[in-house]
Amino acid sequence: MLSLGSGPVLRVPCIIVNFKVYQQGYGKTGLKLLKDLERASKGHEGQVAAAVAAIDIRHFADGSALPIFSQHIDPIGFGAHTGHVLPEAVKEAGAVGTLINHSERRLTIADIGAAVSRCREVGLLSCVCTNNVDTSAAVAALGPDYLAVEPPELIGGTVSVSSARPEVVSGSVVRVRKVNDKVKVLCGAGVKSGKDVAKAIELGSSGVLLASGVVTAKDVAAVMRDLLAGLK
Amino acid sequence: MLSLGSGPVLRVPCIIVNFKVYQQGYGKTGLKLLKDLERASKGHEGQVAAAVAAIDIRHFADGSALPIFSQHIDPIGFGAHTGHVLPEAVKEAGAVGTLINHSERRLTIADIGAAVSRCREVGLLSCVCTNNVDTSAAVAALGPDYLAVEPPELIGGTVSVSSARPEVVSGSVVRVRKVNDKVKVLCGAGVKSGKDVAKAIELGSSGVLLASGVVTAKDVAAVMRDLLAGLK
Amino acid sequence: MLSLGSGPVLRVPCIIVNFKVYQQGYGKTGLKLLKDLERASKGHEGQVAAAVAAIDIRHFADGSALPIFSQHIDPIGFGAHTGHVLPEAVKEAGAVGTLINHSERRLTIADIGAAVSRCREVGLLSCVCTNNVDTSAAVAALGPDYLAVEPPELIGGTVSVSSARPEVVSGSVVRVRKVNDKVKVLCGAGVKSGKDVAKAIELGSSGVLLASGVVTAKDVAAVMRDLLAGLK
Amino acid sequence: MLSLGSGPVLRVPCIIVNFKVYQQGYGKTGLKLLKDLERASKGHEGQVAAAVAAIDIRHFADGSALPIFSQHIDPIGFGAHTGHVLPEAVKEAGAVGTLINHSERRLTIADIGAAVSRCREVGLLSCVCTNNVDTSAAVAALGPDYLAVEPPELIGGTVSVSSARPEVVSGSVVRVRKVNDKVKVLCGAGVKSGKDVAKAIELGSSGVLLASGVVTAKDVAAVMRDLLAGLK
Repeated sequence: MLSLGSGPVLRVPCIIVNFKVYQQGYGKTGLKLLKDLERASKGHEGQVAAAVAAIDIRHFADGSALPIFSQHIDPIGFGAHTGHVLPEAVKEAGAVGTLINHSERRLTIADIGAAVSRCREVGLLSCVCTNNVDTSAAVAALGPDYLAVEPPELIGGTVSVSSARPEVVSGSVVRVRKVNDKVKVLCGAGVKSGKDVAKAIELGSSGVLLASGVVTAKDVAAVMRDLLAGLK
Repeated sequence: MLSLGSGPVLRVPCIIVNFKVYQQGYGKTGLKLLKDLERASKGHEGQVAAAVAAIDIRHFADGSALPIFSQHIDPIGFGAHTGHVLPEAVKEAGAVGTLINHSERRLTIADIGAAVSRCREVGLLSCVCTNNVDTSAAVAALGPDYLAVEPPELIGGTVSVSSARPEVVSGSVVRVRKVNDKVKVLCGAGVKSGKDVAKAIELGSSGVLLASGVVTAKDVAAVMRDLLAGLK
Repeated sequence: MLSLGSGPVLRVPCIIVNFKVYQQGYGKTGLKLLKDLERASKGHEGQVAAAVAAIDIRHFADGSALPIFSQHIDPIGFGAHTGHVLPEAVKEAGAVGTLINHSERRLTIADIGAAVSRCREVGLLSCVCTNNVDTSAAVAALGPDYLAVEPPELIGGTVSVSSARPEVVSGSVVRVRKVNDKVKVLCGAGVKSGKDVAKAIELGSSGVLLASGVVTAKDVAAVMRDLLAGLK
Repeated sequence: MLSLGSGPVLRVPCIIVNFKVYQQGYGKTGLKLLKDLERASKGHEGQVAAAVAAIDIRHFADGSALPIFSQHIDPIGFGAHTGHVLPEAVKEAGAVGTLINHSERRLTIADIGAAVSRCREVGLLSCVCTNNVDTSAAVAALGPDYLAVEPPELIGGTVSVSSARPEVVSGSVVRVRKVNDKVKVLCGAGVKSGKDVAKAIELGSSGVLLASGVVTAKDVAAVMRDLLAGLK
């Protein structure tokens, strides 16, 4: 159980499902998907969260049993910014945290640092995405709550991290612990099944971040049950 | 009256108020601002629209008497995009249009062209921001519904476009008409009062895009009444 | 013959060879490639130019019989910019022009406009890359000397523009002529052979921009002779 | 004395002068400036290096007594990149190292990591710029040879780091040592005089990175002698 004083909490191990902008993951159909995830994860030890587009945060968060993450925030405060995602607005809309620096939305290192700081200020959990062991260690120095390591060659592919690049996860866990042992490492790519989840946990991670494997699944409930079984 | 077949409509002359991420323009306080704008513009010939952050579109649009614009869309379709603004989602959340390429959110020319096309496909009005006469003429070739010319030296300042750079507006109107006479030109900076609005219309524009002058005003209703008087 | 008063000249029809950062196109080997191009194009009507990395402009331009283009400039003047390409420096180093907005180095529309203006101020020829008919028409309004239209689906591929997308070239020529008939249109992708060059000219273009087909060729001289034959 | 096997060397303490694209720092006048720096630093213990635009590397490095740095490299290898700075080309042109992630040329964290790796592969010294203590610690994890911390509020200003923000330098030195004690910390802003240099060294740094104070000085030799006196 991670607690930030009176701040938001997300139990680990956890599964964060990134809805991206898949047709199944936005608006009305996205809300249905969220309810499917709620039902499938009910009664399980591990916690499931959903990372959704800014436009959907408020109506997804309203009444949701699962914590909602934004997919991105900008490292800004109130003022003259157009087309940006204000951390205060993400919090007010009901999200408990946010992804930062996803491989599809990269930031400069100065902006990642500023975004993590802004999360702390407004009371949002931060989960920064990284692409290898070195950048995991680097991000750990910025003090986010979580980081999700996504080896680019595994993103969206069919290869499992447990078979193909286990050292990226275990190496990130070791290096991150040395730099800042409060940062939880998630496995951010190469996870398709409960077996992969179990392997990710075995490698020292505190959970997984995944997307298409759940969002575009024919039987979402079955996939989620399998993934959750891997958390034990 | 601009009509896109069965698509959205925005009467001209118009005033588009960009809420940016001012403290007064998001969440609960932003909703109150929107209601103030509704009341102030009731019964006026000219149409008022609000350009708001993606996170606020749905709850602002729900029951709004004023058309809602997004501040930005990404030129993407369904799929693997994280932290982006999907045109389909903007439409589904209740917006009738979107700003594109605001000076605080610049895009490449390829992306502007693709964003305008995506607006047409999903039935959103497009309003592309430009920074001088040349870029206004260039954007006109991409066929947006509106373009708002914002000379950088006037943005956020106290100088009025009517006194300082009237030729940017009148020049944009002339050049745009030659390239594509269906594109309506708005005056996107240097407008603080009804007198400025009247001057912008006199220079050939179809309305104005403004922000802080309204959003951070002490008496929003009074400012709006003054601006609307300038439309006549 | 294009003449800008006392400015630089590039005869049309022309072939601009983009050296990119291929191993064959930089430093000592790049200089050898340039000499091969010089020899192969000697005595031909059509003019051949080389677009090279900033780091190589000075020593390639020194004594070159072929005009040298930069691959990029930044729309800046003297001052506090680090890691940028100053137009004055490109001119002083001996280049006669520059590519702008190549598909591998996209700029915002405001920056393209400013870069074209800076070229005029310092006396460099400008060649702006575009990706379809609409963006070609848009760029024409900015008044560059040339534009090179590169349909993304043809870049680096084996498909010929003459067979696959001839209407992108002919359509660009028509639209550009209406917006600004001083702008010369080049065919920027899908050209592999003299037959493709001939087709590009037949479609109304003033030449071609190409890269790997020449730079990575086993027999550069033979390829160039074939391409130049297509210009007639 | 820093030695990378058979790689490049830069003695510390050092002064790196960033020529930016000041009128005094490019082309012929820049070469004259470099010779002035050579003369002024002759016989001094501390080492002076010049960070220059890619276009000037080759002719500045040719015969230079001072080591030349590039202002930027792209994290790329040979291939289809246009308008980019290839590490191999920087090396071949005669530079011994490069700045990375300058405040005027920010990169994503993934790209900084990749650029540092590429420097190691081709035998270039890497000096990554950071903006505060947290990002200094983060960058240390990526293993560059140097990092230069530049508090944004001191860049280009008249305030001295020794009086205004000494804890940013001393704090960076402490945090960097914990993460990776092979990384040398430079003071990258707020240095105008020999007194500032002495203070930067006293705070634990291995030297300074500065620009306008030298490049735009009326009497460059006098300024350099003063700065070098501060290294002792």
